[in-house]
Amino acid sequence: MAVKYTKVNEMKLVAFSTKVLEKTGMPHDDAFIASRLMVNTDLRGIASHGVAHLNGLYVKRLKTGFVKAKPDIKMYSGAPATATIDGDRGLGFVVGHKAMQEAISRAKTYGMGAVTCRNTTHYGACSAYSLLALPEDMIGFSCTTGGLNAVVPGASGRTAGMNAMSFAAPSNKEFPFCLDMSSTMAAWGKVEIALRTGDMLPLGWTIDPDGNPITDPKEDEIKKGAMVMLGGTKELGVYKGFGLNLMIDILSSTLAASVCLPELFQSPSTASTCTHFCMAMKISGFTPPEEFKKGMDRLIETYHNLPKAKGVKNITIPGELEWALVLDRKKNGIPLDEVVIQSLKELSTEFKVDFDII
Amino acid sequence: MAVKYTKVNEMKLVAFSTKVLEKTGMPHDDAFIASRLMVNTDLRGIASHGVAHLNGLYVKRLKTGFVKAKPDIKMYSGAPATATIDGDRGLGFVVGHKAMQEAISRAKTYGMGAVTCRNTTHYGACSAYSLLALPEDMIGFSCTTGGLNAVVPGASGRTAGMNAMSFAAPSNKEFPFCLDMSSTMAAWGKVEIALRTGDMLPLGWTIDPDGNPITDPKEDEIKKGAMVMLGGTKELGVYKGFGLNLMIDILSSTLAASVCLPELFQSPSTASTCTHFCMAMKISGFTPPEEFKKGMDRLIETYHNLPKAKGVKNITIPGELEWALVLDRKKNGIPLDEVVIQSLKELSTEFKVDFDII
Repeated sequence: MAVKYTKVNEMKLVAFSTKVLEKTGMPHDDAFIASRLMVNTDLRGIASHGVAHLNGLYVKRLKTGFVKAKPDIKMYSGAPATATIDGDRGLGFVVGHKAMQEAISRAKTYGMGAVTCRNTTHYGACSAYSLLALPEDMIGFSCTTGGLNAVVPGASGRTAGMNAMSFAAPSNKEFPFCLDMSSTMAAWGKVEIALRTGDMLPLGWTIDPDGNPITDPKEDEIKKGAMVMLGGTKELGVYKGFGLNLMIDILSSTLAASVCLPELFQSPSTASTCTHFCMAMKISGFTPPEEFKKGMDRLIETYHNLPKAKGVKNITIPGELEWALVLDRKKNGIPLDEVVIQSLKELSTEFKVDFDII
Repeated sequence: MAVKYTKVNEMKLVAFSTKVLEKTGMPHDDAFIASRLMVNTDLRGIASHGVAHLNGLYVKRLKTGFVKAKPDIKMYSGAPATATIDGDRGLGFVVGHKAMQEAISRAKTYGMGAVTCRNTTHYGACSAYSLLALPEDMIGFSCTTGGLNAVVPGASGRTAGMNAMSFAAPSNKEFPFCLDMSSTMAAWGKVEIALRTGDMLPLGWTIDPDGNPITDPKEDEIKKGAMVMLGGTKELGVYKGFGLNLMIDILSSTLAASVCLPELFQSPSTASTCTHFCMAMKISGFTPPEEFKKGMDRLIETYHNLPKAKGVKNITIPGELEWALVLDRKKNGIPLDEVVIQSLKELSTEFKVDFDII
């Protein structure tokens, strides 16, 4: 299906989203933080986790009260470098941002810091948080549990969270390294894009409760389907994908609330909430940051210059394509598809916020 | 090929290996630590990373002096919770153990601790280190770079390290959770086992410099081959496997020495060295450990009780099968194949250490 894109302005999009979220009752600073992180994600080309969710996911949940516009976020800390946050079902962006700032603040003093978060909601892409550490000359890590859309190896149907993680490290002259990955072969957001565009899904991503592959993104088919963990089959390493999925569940859910994601989804009052974990490591606690960042430049250069396979022109490092998009989109605008544009226009009408984003 | 196994006694095997390593010049305590961690790995069924390497890898390198029996290990610490160790090319077990103990010690005070290690050598399986945190009511993480046997997506031939990682968390009544994984579909050690047994390799694990699959473990074929990263193909997520591989390289190599593994292998003086990273997080820094461990029991129970796919009896959690093996092998002995037994007999003769391990 041919999809029409409209290019919108980064700063205007942040301002628009901020005004919309304020109209739902969120304080200005929180609305701005959420919008800034959401648009950062669109800048990086992760169309599945940016403003595409503003109307259908975030505003919808703020309107029903499932997500609280003014959460009473509480923190418990049992050690100098670590803490647990209870997000009081606030918007995940606000809770995750607070957690990462807290981890960074503790890392400034102790060399590293980590904060786990319970009772929170969808926080977008993990890279929005890991990348916050880089300007502080720190390495950033963040992970989150997600909706119950993945299948545990050996189980039938949707039995595990769409858990994801990001690891980011600063460079000197080169782009920032940023791995941003789901523990499944593909993120659920990629399926949501296919639902909008009608494109077929690659074989292997999704199976039905009987284990048969689903490749047609017709909603009825997909509703029965579950996302397969990274690795795909036992022989090719699906237990590694599952293990990463559980590592994320343990760091985010068990460490924060002594529950796991499938348990959260067994109770109507906690289904669709999620959990996060944020960590920062101060590079100067290990080595001089300038040396490290020069080392990152050389790492990128070394991998770029490896002997290529036949027909391959470039070797791509995680974060490289995304950074090229950031530079382009800051200058030339962020392309949003028609469905997303329409969903933003609805918000403009509903909340009487000027549709001034082009 | 039918392989004959001999069951050997855990404690006798530790004692034998300790005596052999002492004969190479290692201090008793270091020889014991290395042997204990090696045999712990055999107990867990990771036949590729235990005493199978004692003769052909560790003792061989100690005899040539490539691995130093009495390294002058130095530590630099730029922050209370973090440090960098220079292993002075000591045996990886000794360097890695020191790093994990240091991380645990700092975590006791600050809630978490991390130590990165340069100028070190092969340290066995990552789980040998992550698991050291559990008796302290901590979560453990360790990763290491490995030999240059993997292929970077888009590159030709052996271009990346066999980088691996382990994440472990304690439970209450259930087995300890332990993910122990290479960033490739399979560990190189699995190929080494196939070289000993003659078993064919699964399609996808290994490719030649032109990208053609290799499944026959005939040495000549394998020598041209490289291990494929987790995910396998671009569409099915090989950039996630590659990203994890680089995350490990950054935490272990760039953070410790501002180099990356392919750079290390470009210089004859540093080729075949490697780098590690160890981290511990004190659970009480986040939540009461008893609550966390009960949560881990419930996590295991919850995943075990998920609806099963057709024909599936049990859902297996990372660390579960390995723990069952530990219990069995502590009681009934560790099965070693004929090639490994023979390699130990050679050490017995060479170093005049009684072959008393049955």
